Amino acid sequence: MQVYLDNSATTSAHPRVVEAVVDALTNNYGNPSSMHSMGIQAEKLLKNSRRFVAKALGGSEKEVFFTSGGTESNNLAIFGTAQAYRKTGNHIITTEVEHPSVLNACKQLETEGFEVTYIKPNQLGYVSKEDVLATIRPDTILLSIMHVNNETGAIQPVAEIAKALKKLKKKPVFHVDGVQAIGKLRVSVKRLGVDLYSISGHKIHGPKGTGALFIKDGSKITPRQVGGAQEKSIRPGTENVPGLCGLGVAAELVQVDLNADIEKLQHLRNAFWRKIESELTDLKMNSGFGDDFGPHILNISFVGMRGEVLLHALESKGIYVSTGSACASKNKSYSHVLTAMGMTEPEMEGAIRFSFNAEQNVKEVECAAEVVCESVKALSKIIKGR
Amino acid sequence: MQVYLDNSATTSAHPRVVEAVVDALTNNYGNPSSMHSMGIQAEKLLKNSRRFVAKALGGSEKEVFFTSGGTESNNLAIFGTAQAYRKTGNHIITTEVEHPSVLNACKQLETEGFEVTYIKPNQLGYVSKEDVLATIRPDTILLSIMHVNNETGAIQPVAEIAKALKKLKKKPVFHVDGVQAIGKLRVSVKRLGVDLYSISGHKIHGPKGTGALFIKDGSKITPRQVGGAQEKSIRPGTENVPGLCGLGVAAELVQVDLNADIEKLQHLRNAFWRKIESELTDLKMNSGFGDDFGPHILNISFVGMRGEVLLHALESKGIYVSTGSACASKNKSYSHVLTAMGMTEPEMEGAIRFSFNAEQNVKEVECAAEVVCESVKALSKIIKGR
Repeated sequence: MQVYLDNSATTSAHPRVVEAVVDALTNNYGNPSSMHSMGIQAEKLLKNSRRFVAKALGGSEKEVFFTSGGTESNNLAIFGTAQAYRKTGNHIITTEVEHPSVLNACKQLETEGFEVTYIKPNQLGYVSKEDVLATIRPDTILLSIMHVNNETGAIQPVAEIAKALKKLKKKPVFHVDGVQAIGKLRVSVKRLGVDLYSISGHKIHGPKGTGALFIKDGSKITPRQVGGAQEKSIRPGTENVPGLCGLGVAAELVQVDLNADIEKLQHLRNAFWRKIESELTDLKMNSGFGDDFGPHILNISFVGMRGEVLLHALESKGIYVSTGSACASKNKSYSHVLTAMGMTEPEMEGAIRFSFNAEQNVKEVECAAEVVCESVKALSKIIKGR
Repeated sequence: MQVYLDNSATTSAHPRVVEAVVDALTNNYGNPSSMHSMGIQAEKLLKNSRRFVAKALGGSEKEVFFTSGGTESNNLAIFGTAQAYRKTGNHIITTEVEHPSVLNACKQLETEGFEVTYIKPNQLGYVSKEDVLATIRPDTILLSIMHVNNETGAIQPVAEIAKALKKLKKKPVFHVDGVQAIGKLRVSVKRLGVDLYSISGHKIHGPKGTGALFIKDGSKITPRQVGGAQEKSIRPGTENVPGLCGLGVAAELVQVDLNADIEKLQHLRNAFWRKIESELTDLKMNSGFGDDFGPHILNISFVGMRGEVLLHALESKGIYVSTGSACASKNKSYSHVLTAMGMTEPEMEGAIRFSFNAEQNVKEVECAAEVVCESVKALSKIIKGR
């Protein structure tokens, strides 16, 4: 049995995504910048993808800018806004629980003279709207707050924050890292009222190496990459047509049955947790089951275990999980997210992230939970026997 | 009949490249940063690709850094070096005939306080070693000179320049944009003696959205993208495993029969030109046939014609060409390369780039040349009849 419960790290590509990629690699391989019909055909494919991505985000086509992934989207949003508004102010607000591509961009901006406030979350991983608003100053140019946390699934109150921002006389640019939100929540950048929104293809069964940044019409942003005129010169470089065709299909697919997918994910997650909870003790639940948590992630601390040991015990039985985010996995320190939530060392040490996809079924997820229970019990015996 | 003579704009993916991409999208879809075996397997695939790219470049694996393409590689080389050596000096040397991803990076650095010298080429498009050396100052930190020009195929004397640089007491970093060189010349970064070398996947039958920068061991470079620890933190972001697997195969394939491929390309180019030359007058050859020109590009001015009109006449008969580089095609001004070569307006107006690939055969290329001759004659009649 193999059960892949690391879907927040990456996903397999959907067969229709693969088809689209192969078509653009072999038949429709023109360069969208070429003036002849093969170029025009490639540009049409891009336009089609852009339409699907725009629809998945609830924005318009002209507000979608393709990138090479979530990291580039986040970097472009943060560096690009900081650069464009440098003369207006130099204060940036973010949170302690962002992805490294946001946190490290902010850290770099600090070395370039910007001042950054990192909002601390509460024990559940949420930042409060009040904390964010209290931090805004006349020279605040940018807020960057993730939609769904990649380690715990916590949904930040970005809609409420955006609403409050609208009342301000001088409104900072609001960037939301939505990499873990799209396909798991009903996302609408218009309804949310944000200026910039990042997504990544490979988290939604699209290809790695693809992403997009929604840039609200009229927003100022300084390009990070320079060269030709692709993506209206906001993101030059020959477009990754095959990858972006795949992203378009992935964006189309997340819209087909989103409500059903969300219910399915909740169902899988709940079934998994019921099994774990009924058989094991010394657990700490770092995620939640309400509307303020994404339906696809369960972060559980097996207190007394070492997460890494449990991870390898599980993979030896075909269950693939992670101890935190993949991007920070080679870092030996504790998760910055769990640290910010004020967790104890044994709780962080024993944390495992299980992340589901809507194509999975309850039976396999329950089998995986059973294996988790057995493995934890077996490891406990070894630990106690020492 | 369809003959694609725009291989310098982009190429179709090789069937083995497609296979590698599909495998990584569907079977080996792990995130290389994941600690479990699916992550390790993805990392192995990357390592394998890195080995082939290193071999194609004549460098070592640890000197190969994957990017999203030629533009990103060039940007990383230029911005990354300028940033890393900012305290040492602020003078940069490049040429007037570089790709926009080099020229526009240099232009941006000028706005940030750097001084850039743009070397003028001669009428054949070459910069001279002497001109370059005469321009070097004690505060010169970077030279960026392309290997093979993307519009004319002119091979710049980068090996000679690198050799001369070695004799300097204070040697600037030498970056070479090799996007149009790999697969068309025998490239060896070691033999050339350069510090940084850019390549792109989609020019060598690999996937769009992939590239690499060779960074000589010990060279200082400041990352342009920040986030996780991927590519030793020089280029963070989840690696485009499917695309990079494709790039690896493409890099493997260019090495298989490179000498034969070069001969083949010369043969195709020469056959094409013989046909054109024997039937048409009012031609200006903007490329050449010696060792100082890449074998895959012929840039010809059909003096008296408008290149764009000829391009569309040809595409209506299934022949795909370009008027200049794809990256600048939407720019209505004349080619900056041909302008720098001192060409007249009618010569620039009538310029067409034909670019070949080694899978093509003489017969189809001669047929294409025949169509070109017919089309030029027909258009001439119309023009003269006006």
